Amino acid sequence: MKALQDKIVQDGKVLSETVLKVDSFLNHQIDPKLMQEIGQEFANRYKDAGLTRIVTIESSGIAPATMAGLILGIPVVFARKRKSLTLAGNLYSSKVHSFTKNETNEISVSKDFLKSDDVVLIIDDFLANGEAVKGLLDIVGQAGATASGVGIVIEKGFQDGGKLLREKGIRIDSLAIISSLEDGKVTFAEGELAR
Amino acid sequence: MKALQDKIVQDGKVLSETVLKVDSFLNHQIDPKLMQEIGQEFANRYKDAGLTRIVTIESSGIAPATMAGLILGIPVVFARKRKSLTLAGNLYSSKVHSFTKNETNEISVSKDFLKSDDVVLIIDDFLANGEAVKGLLDIVGQAGATASGVGIVIEKGFQDGGKLLREKGIRIDSLAIISSLEDGKVTFAEGELAR
Repeated sequence: MKALQDKIVQDGKVLSETVLKVDSFLNHQIDPKLMQEIGQEFANRYKDAGLTRIVTIESSGIAPATMAGLILGIPVVFARKRKSLTLAGNLYSSKVHSFTKNETNEISVSKDFLKSDDVVLIIDDFLANGEAVKGLLDIVGQAGATASGVGIVIEKGFQDGGKLLREKGIRIDSLAIISSLEDGKVTFAEGELAR
Repeated sequence: MKALQDKIVQDGKVLSETVLKVDSFLNHQIDPKLMQEIGQEFANRYKDAGLTRIVTIESSGIAPATMAGLILGIPVVFARKRKSLTLAGNLYSSKVHSFTKNETNEISVSKDFLKSDDVVLIIDDFLANGEAVKGLLDIVGQAGATASGVGIVIEKGFQDGGKLLREKGIRIDSLAIISSLEDGKVTFAEGELAR
């Protein structure tokens, strides 16, 4: 997605060969117009998939997921990273390790908002080693729902999450795939993966 | 705001005389269409305020804030509740106690995304005792920015946060003000507060 790639080049900060900071438009500050364009792109790709619900994870997945949900006319559920008092019980849960934050969170979705007849698009901001997506797929599976695919804003193509998930036959739509952050420079993957 | 009041009556769950659960459209599952209407309402009320930025707090403030930001054409910053590794340093921070979750979080906003010439609308999902709003106002003040007002989706009018903030001269725009949750029933405040 060209507008996203341009934004990454313009405003992203390469902190190391593995860390790209996009706090200025996705992870801390949000660019609502770009989120709308991202939501539109996900909606275009999944408009014929018969989706009934979008599942994402707090916090950075919420903005693009909500935009996609608005365009597709379906609700969005965001998995919570900790159990809150009002959410206790009645949950699907899975453990997710974040290498960036070096911590393991239990993510949870209420059984009220994910049913066995749901056809789900999973949306998340980043795909690196795939831990968060695996946790969300686990939760969708626990509900007996169908995961139609996974929409990712930025995939770190040099980490193995995308490869492992695609090898399992899971449809992954990444709007920008980064093949390298070497020499402080963002290089995008080309060809069919980048679509 | 009628559509919001109707949704609260239809889908909200009164768990006690102080707890209203709106997990089906705001705090866990998100109704994107309603979020757009809420964003439009905030945008209408603040369209002449010269806003340059919206500040909210993860996670439930993000969807309505992003919709308002889209309509107003300004960026949204969400305060983080914990320091993440990539955000360390360069932060405005404030302590916020959540009575619902019975925990105190440090909330933080990067100095990169809040400047002394900013005119800010603060948006949050709930206003009860006002702790989160006070923390966000503290952060806006640390940046030397101007808080034009506070947009709240649901105010618990029977708790004192709204009263205390209004007494300080802070403009509060609550789209639904609940005066009571007694007898398992939602009663809304009428008159000028409810606008």
